[in-house]
Amino acid sequence: MTGTLPPPERGREIPPPRAVVERIVALALAEDLGRGDVTTEACVPPGVRGEAHVVARQPLVLAGLGVLREVYRQVDPEVEVHDRARDGDALERGQPVAHLHGRAASILAGERVALNFVQHLSGIATTARRFVEALPPGSRTRITDTRKTTPGLRPLERYAVRCGGAHNHREDLSSAVLIKDNHIAAAGGVRAAIERARRHAPHTSRIECEVEDLEQLREALDAGAEVVLLDNFDDEMLPEAIALARGRALVEVSGGVTLARVPIIAAAGADVISAGALTLGAPAVDLGLDWIGP
Amino acid sequence: MTGTLPPPERGREIPPPRAVVERIVALALAEDLGRGDVTTEACVPPGVRGEAHVVARQPLVLAGLGVLREVYRQVDPEVEVHDRARDGDALERGQPVAHLHGRAASILAGERVALNFVQHLSGIATTARRFVEALPPGSRTRITDTRKTTPGLRPLERYAVRCGGAHNHREDLSSAVLIKDNHIAAAGGVRAAIERARRHAPHTSRIECEVEDLEQLREALDAGAEVVLLDNFDDEMLPEAIALARGRALVEVSGGVTLARVPIIAAAGADVISAGALTLGAPAVDLGLDWIGP
Amino acid sequence: MTGTLPPPERGREIPPPRAVVERIVALALAEDLGRGDVTTEACVPPGVRGEAHVVARQPLVLAGLGVLREVYRQVDPEVEVHDRARDGDALERGQPVAHLHGRAASILAGERVALNFVQHLSGIATTARRFVEALPPGSRTRITDTRKTTPGLRPLERYAVRCGGAHNHREDLSSAVLIKDNHIAAAGGVRAAIERARRHAPHTSRIECEVEDLEQLREALDAGAEVVLLDNFDDEMLPEAIALARGRALVEVSGGVTLARVPIIAAAGADVISAGALTLGAPAVDLGLDWIGP
Amino acid sequence: MTGTLPPPERGREIPPPRAVVERIVALALAEDLGRGDVTTEACVPPGVRGEAHVVARQPLVLAGLGVLREVYRQVDPEVEVHDRARDGDALERGQPVAHLHGRAASILAGERVALNFVQHLSGIATTARRFVEALPPGSRTRITDTRKTTPGLRPLERYAVRCGGAHNHREDLSSAVLIKDNHIAAAGGVRAAIERARRHAPHTSRIECEVEDLEQLREALDAGAEVVLLDNFDDEMLPEAIALARGRALVEVSGGVTLARVPIIAAAGADVISAGALTLGAPAVDLGLDWIGP
Amino acid sequence: MTGTLPPPERGREIPPPRAVVERIVALALAEDLGRGDVTTEACVPPGVRGEAHVVARQPLVLAGLGVLREVYRQVDPEVEVHDRARDGDALERGQPVAHLHGRAASILAGERVALNFVQHLSGIATTARRFVEALPPGSRTRITDTRKTTPGLRPLERYAVRCGGAHNHREDLSSAVLIKDNHIAAAGGVRAAIERARRHAPHTSRIECEVEDLEQLREALDAGAEVVLLDNFDDEMLPEAIALARGRALVEVSGGVTLARVPIIAAAGADVISAGALTLGAPAVDLGLDWIGP
Amino acid sequence: MTGTLPPPERGREIPPPRAVVERIVALALAEDLGRGDVTTEACVPPGVRGEAHVVARQPLVLAGLGVLREVYRQVDPEVEVHDRARDGDALERGQPVAHLHGRAASILAGERVALNFVQHLSGIATTARRFVEALPPGSRTRITDTRKTTPGLRPLERYAVRCGGAHNHREDLSSAVLIKDNHIAAAGGVRAAIERARRHAPHTSRIECEVEDLEQLREALDAGAEVVLLDNFDDEMLPEAIALARGRALVEVSGGVTLARVPIIAAAGADVISAGALTLGAPAVDLGLDWIGP
Repeated sequence: MTGTLPPPERGREIPPPRAVVERIVALALAEDLGRGDVTTEACVPPGVRGEAHVVARQPLVLAGLGVLREVYRQVDPEVEVHDRARDGDALERGQPVAHLHGRAASILAGERVALNFVQHLSGIATTARRFVEALPPGSRTRITDTRKTTPGLRPLERYAVRCGGAHNHREDLSSAVLIKDNHIAAAGGVRAAIERARRHAPHTSRIECEVEDLEQLREALDAGAEVVLLDNFDDEMLPEAIALARGRALVEVSGGVTLARVPIIAAAGADVISAGALTLGAPAVDLGLDWIGP
Repeated sequence: MTGTLPPPERGREIPPPRAVVERIVALALAEDLGRGDVTTEACVPPGVRGEAHVVARQPLVLAGLGVLREVYRQVDPEVEVHDRARDGDALERGQPVAHLHGRAASILAGERVALNFVQHLSGIATTARRFVEALPPGSRTRITDTRKTTPGLRPLERYAVRCGGAHNHREDLSSAVLIKDNHIAAAGGVRAAIERARRHAPHTSRIECEVEDLEQLREALDAGAEVVLLDNFDDEMLPEAIALARGRALVEVSGGVTLARVPIIAAAGADVISAGALTLGAPAVDLGLDWIGP
Repeated sequence: MTGTLPPPERGREIPPPRAVVERIVALALAEDLGRGDVTTEACVPPGVRGEAHVVARQPLVLAGLGVLREVYRQVDPEVEVHDRARDGDALERGQPVAHLHGRAASILAGERVALNFVQHLSGIATTARRFVEALPPGSRTRITDTRKTTPGLRPLERYAVRCGGAHNHREDLSSAVLIKDNHIAAAGGVRAAIERARRHAPHTSRIECEVEDLEQLREALDAGAEVVLLDNFDDEMLPEAIALARGRALVEVSGGVTLARVPIIAAAGADVISAGALTLGAPAVDLGLDWIGP
Repeated sequence: MTGTLPPPERGREIPPPRAVVERIVALALAEDLGRGDVTTEACVPPGVRGEAHVVARQPLVLAGLGVLREVYRQVDPEVEVHDRARDGDALERGQPVAHLHGRAASILAGERVALNFVQHLSGIATTARRFVEALPPGSRTRITDTRKTTPGLRPLERYAVRCGGAHNHREDLSSAVLIKDNHIAAAGGVRAAIERARRHAPHTSRIECEVEDLEQLREALDAGAEVVLLDNFDDEMLPEAIALARGRALVEVSGGVTLARVPIIAAAGADVISAGALTLGAPAVDLGLDWIGP
Repeated sequence: MTGTLPPPERGREIPPPRAVVERIVALALAEDLGRGDVTTEACVPPGVRGEAHVVARQPLVLAGLGVLREVYRQVDPEVEVHDRARDGDALERGQPVAHLHGRAASILAGERVALNFVQHLSGIATTARRFVEALPPGSRTRITDTRKTTPGLRPLERYAVRCGGAHNHREDLSSAVLIKDNHIAAAGGVRAAIERARRHAPHTSRIECEVEDLEQLREALDAGAEVVLLDNFDDEMLPEAIALARGRALVEVSGGVTLARVPIIAAAGADVISAGALTLGAPAVDLGLDWIGP
Repeated sequence: MTGTLPPPERGREIPPPRAVVERIVALALAEDLGRGDVTTEACVPPGVRGEAHVVARQPLVLAGLGVLREVYRQVDPEVEVHDRARDGDALERGQPVAHLHGRAASILAGERVALNFVQHLSGIATTARRFVEALPPGSRTRITDTRKTTPGLRPLERYAVRCGGAHNHREDLSSAVLIKDNHIAAAGGVRAAIERARRHAPHTSRIECEVEDLEQLREALDAGAEVVLLDNFDDEMLPEAIALARGRALVEVSGGVTLARVPIIAAAGADVISAGALTLGAPAVDLGLDWIGP
């Protein structure tokens, strides 16, 4: 375990369980569609059918096609959705994502919710892909997300991160032990926190500890931390810190991680780079629904 | 009604109904806290108490203090939350937002969820404020949001927009009539869409129609549109279009609205500028929870 | 907009979104079926199959066939439901509404819930139809419902109103601005209320104001109300009031609206007649489930 | 058990469990208030406070004061609600029901939902009271409701029935055995249905059987029915039927029960008269919210 | 009614309504599967398919096959579930219960939840069967469950009791009247409690009263109890007590009922023996999921 | 990490988050109380107050006092609950657990649900305590639960396990990696499964692998498993297996773990003993509610 992490072998990602996607889409539709689309009811005669393409309006990495499909399943199961791409694909501007066919009223009613999801999730996948591609060739460093996700959307955003080629950090507070600055303050120091954690934490979880300087790092390693998180270490301090930890613990680097710093941190030997920017700061990408006609 | 909109008189905004905030926070806590915070359980002895400040780490317009308060009410109603600022305030880096006091385990368990909300919502308020401040002095133009909101968070994001000093567009698809390109396509043209809408729409809703060029604009005005949305008109075309509509309909300008274009569009005489960037593209701002000690 | 409303062109109505119907039916079944039908379990041998007709037991306008269908989908998806009429149809006593075929236990378990819905909704449609038919031939006046609906059933009742040929008023409190007596009292007068509303209300909503006498009416028109609601004006006062408003605002008449008064109010030139009696006072109509046999 | 039912000793009724009331009110508020009351937000300045009375606008029997209280607890717990009457009271036109004091915006936001509930439930209580008062003095006959209740509101409507002085029939399909015409058809006859039910029904439930003529009645009594429901027996047939059953089973009369028939049926010796009209056909009564001022 | 209960004629039992099973399974999956199965995601390549058998690992009476089926429907509707036995069947060690075929990841993700349900419910069915088989041949005594069920699982556990061949007691507190020691204490005695209950209880419910000695028994019979529950009567007291009640009320015996006492109590002439041990104390039985291969 | 686990330092346990307890209790009350307790309504006059003790009827380790408290908060917040013991306490027969005071109707309505929870959870705590006390003095071996919990009650049951002095295994399938026999089969062998897991699993989770014989054990250790689960190893094989793993991985022993085997397995040097019997097979203990009087 104290060796580095083996390189990932990535492929198509498994989406969140169906029930999770259903619940999130139901909330979003309740919020946007309410009890009906008065514009469509008012100006589109019942019975009119239509066809439309969902299209990338900029280069992007796709994520969320299954969510779009679920939106239309809930709005009107008779709208046919035909995929024209797959999650994880890198698309050019103008490339089609999906083809829709069915009642015009239904296609229009679901348009905004479907696009909001795909734009948001593909924005995360696109950002994640950029971070992964910023790693030096052959690098064994992992890029991961953090818990800085949009409230309510975490399972989808974590999936989008994987579609971009990055990894997920722990799921939630009940999944794994990660001792942060405020835990250390409340527990009375690095050593006290780690030792207490080793006694009480589930034996299935590694003990990870965040440290802010070399002194804390040494204390954490001595106390038996299995993963150390170097928080806000600058580029100069990283090599010494990582050398200190090598062979004793996995090293995660976090805090102020930008695209530009990724190759530097990776070159310094970090096992894991975690970046809140993968989710909380990821700009949505542009997709549109082009009406083809009845 | 065909005159311009009277200038807003802004003050403290009314937050969404309590039940709405409760439901969103409950979902977010279920997602992040799960069935307990194993780190805190493992490394912080029960009974330890603590104090902490929530602090702005960059200049920002605050929104979401009530959400933070609700997070702690749900985690542990005995955590005391004392406000140090109010939603809508412009804060400097380092200014305190709230002071927390209670069980250390509870403060730590709610930290991430509380910060995620306040960072996200204050990011929107800060962006909205920038757009409002980009208007020429004395301008009667309104800045509004759009339906491009994060799925599940719309009521909070709309509130944050108001905290920033901007207005809200319609609530959802069942609130008002806004005929867009795809409705026009499905209804068989601008005139057909508007006339049908006037027959069937609730009499409480104005009939708004999106147009893409001067010809559509004339058709919409002739058919009785009460609000016209000029979609993706460039800066050169705006004055003529707005002159055409003046006295006949309110004019909303949307599509590709950036901060730089706001004064130009306002100067051209738009009644409303709606920008998806207020919500979908607004970067989160940075706030932190500083532990003071037990 | 200040002209009268164009005459409606009515056809089949679009029912509320599927998810809305599902949720309401699920609640009703949980309430009536509980965890099983002990009578059927006790006295009908498993395996017995049956057939039944749902039949009108009095003349009525049908509404709620899709709800009946959803009831059986939730009780037992293998019960086949064949329509014998369509929502909006005027039926005679004895006319069949639907034919059911499947497990006897399932047909019996859903009977009461299905009938309760169809009886209640058809009662509303029937009442609405009577109001619409009370309009003078060629009248441009609209009949609408109000927010006086049965708690929990509003989307279905609004749909039933449309099946009867009437229109819907605003969806809920967040859809449109309607300033009522108590708002006026709280805001400090008609003018203050309207002016403040024009500054803050969404630009997609017309500003409607309820008035109780001619003085308030003048004040509302002067302040820029786009719709005036004449509340409890008697038949003598209506013509003068409507003449005053013509060309300046749409006129809605409400309060004490009975079937007998509809032609009088319409003849006086009202654009809209809104009646709580369409929903809150509508008597349920009688339908039954006739067992045909196995 | 085969004797008649002892006369009721009525007093204040126990309302449904708190959680049931909470859930129904939450749904109704979500439906009517949505994500906020745009009229109040637009035209009532924040901070304005007010006072109001809820007042009976016609003679009525009150039911639902606790629901009104719950509405305001959910809208804004700082609105003070002071009772001026109690559920079950017979009120005259003009009598106050409750006094409200608090933020004007909150009082206005909850007004319609609160009134809808009290009007609907008091309508049921008033109708039930009329039926009870139509019984001959000293009568031992019970008036009960049926399962013909508004979907979603059954627990409240049953409570309103009790406030009116009537009794409740069984709660739902899983509470007790009541064999109806379609069960008899599916089970292969009265005797087969009852015998099978006696074998399989919970021993805590009486076996009640609906009969349509004297022959079915005899068959039901012979098969051991403990309660017989005489369905749609006309006034002439009742005495003979009841005489037949006396001492062998309780007699419930149902079907086409009007206020005028109540004394006749009671005089014929029925133990129970059940009337769908108590709930499904009960006209709402009129109550209003009178604004007193700030 | 005062005679004994007719002997049951048992067959395949009707399971709880679909919606009830769906809701319980959804909760259990949310609890165990969370937002995904990281082990399967990490170590099973996507696309691998598999086959497995669910097998009895000890002799048992099966209950819950429909729940297993629902688990897989929610995890992945493409997993095929083929029954190899039916609820109510007595199986030997090694006998197959079901055959699964589909995506390996899906079969693995649902394994534990599916097995937990079937093990728990079959444990109850097996226990119930033992109690039923302990009755003397030809006995007319019923074995029933009590309200001592696992919170949240009552409908499933009641169904399992029926699969074992036993009966259900009342569904819940709102289904029937059962006066227990603490009601008697609060009402001021046996007679007061029963008389008050006869006045107010629904006429569809028998009045059952728990008694602790012969004196209470006489008081209950005199007051008109239709069912008496002899609580914690020892084997010596039972014959006299039952003789006293015969012809006047049904007799239920409860409290300290073990398998060994069943024939004794039945021989003494009890109509009903109710045992909490059917549910609360029933040991789960062992079933496993044997992987056959891809 | 490859050393043994440090000995636990146990104290009062932190219960699951409030919202989790609330939700489980709400479900249980809905299930048992339904829409009201007809017995209490029928036979206890409104206004009667009472007092009662919850008492242990056998020696037990207490768990679930907070759940009892939540039951009464939901039934009637005015019932006062005074603790007479604390979760984790070992109580003798007859010792009081809590004292209740309030409306008699409320105390009776919550009785069964409250007792069901405390009996079930204390049964688990009592069983867990027996397993912990079966460890040799000074043992560093941990006793843990498994995922064999009652569907819907896992968070409460895990808490009860901790009250008994044992540890929790992983929370759910998304918390940690535990490769079991069927994963190995689906992944194509122990080595393939572990290697793939190391590439893809969150870096916060240890990689645990279940093995069935020494060969698999060696393969797992060679592939880098950090925890090995010896499944169904008999007492003779354990020492050799544990010796093989010592210093390379933590050793968990599971499968067929009885109280009698605990000291043997601990003596063989296991780090963790996990037993489904802590939850799935734990017999409920007996507690009662003794009525003291008004």
